[in-house]
Amino acid sequence: MTDNLQRLLNTELPITLHLGVRVVVANPEQVILRAPLAPNRNHRGTAFAGSLNALATLAGWSWLTLFLQHHHLAGQVVLQDSSITYARPVATAFTATCAAPEAATIARFRAAFHRSGRGRLRLTVELADEAGAAGSFTGRYVAERLTAPPGAAPA
Amino acid sequence: MTDNLQRLLNTELPITLHLGVRVVVANPEQVILRAPLAPNRNHRGTAFAGSLNALATLAGWSWLTLFLQHHHLAGQVVLQDSSITYARPVATAFTATCAAPEAATIARFRAAFHRSGRGRLRLTVELADEAGAAGSFTGRYVAERLTAPPGAAPA
Repeated sequence: MTDNLQRLLNTELPITLHLGVRVVVANPEQVILRAPLAPNRNHRGTAFAGSLNALATLAGWSWLTLFLQHHHLAGQVVLQDSSITYARPVATAFTATCAAPEAATIARFRAAFHRSGRGRLRLTVELADEAGAAGSFTGRYVAERLTAPPGAAPA
Repeated sequence: MTDNLQRLLNTELPITLHLGVRVVVANPEQVILRAPLAPNRNHRGTAFAGSLNALATLAGWSWLTLFLQHHHLAGQVVLQDSSITYARPVATAFTATCAAPEAATIARFRAAFHRSGRGRLRLTVELADEAGAAGSFTGRYVAERLTAPPGAAPA
């Protein structure tokens, strides 16, 4: 899953190549993405807030996209809203970790997706650098069922 | 101020070159930044949420950085926390507009900066594309006074 996600990110979201995003872990329990400091440095030589937010945004998107794939649910994931707190300057490479939410939360999401073709899920992503925790992100993601275009043969 | 800000962004925040950030307007009333769709496209061919957030983050940072310069206040600006709502998919080039907050809010910020060397300011940034409003960002920025290092001669 790690290689597949790396390819997916680099192909579908070309800015990930410039951010230097690397997939470290990608499984149903969690997704961990990593980025180097150099291309993401700011005026203080620490990580640009927008790069930290982008990595967190991608970690949540990746977890839910892989969840859909893992459960053979044809859907697309978008971010509806998010909030982020930057706890301190990040002076090294950094990671964004999205862990699976609680089983009951996932069950509610799946039920809505099956019922209406659309499910919402709030995901938390933790930011860290080599010195430890560095911030926290929460995003409300929406998965929408992909349907075949009118007249298309089932594939 | 437009050229100066363009140079500052590209020099101090190299990811802005890959995002394709262009300074459209930069004056004490407002900062407007623009980015093209192509380098920021996502899996749906619309703008990546992380790129929209990065442009908004930069617009707020730019407005406050220029405000400090304009008033000859030596300080550095960082983002403490932010929240963003993505109203709809963005299918064209997009802009982030940060307008000056109310005079009373600015006065409180300046008083804190003068008193303690540190001021906080909540800035709102509006996102738009060629079809109109596309989202809204609020960030709490912190400006910290730059002091000469111990033993340094005044410059």
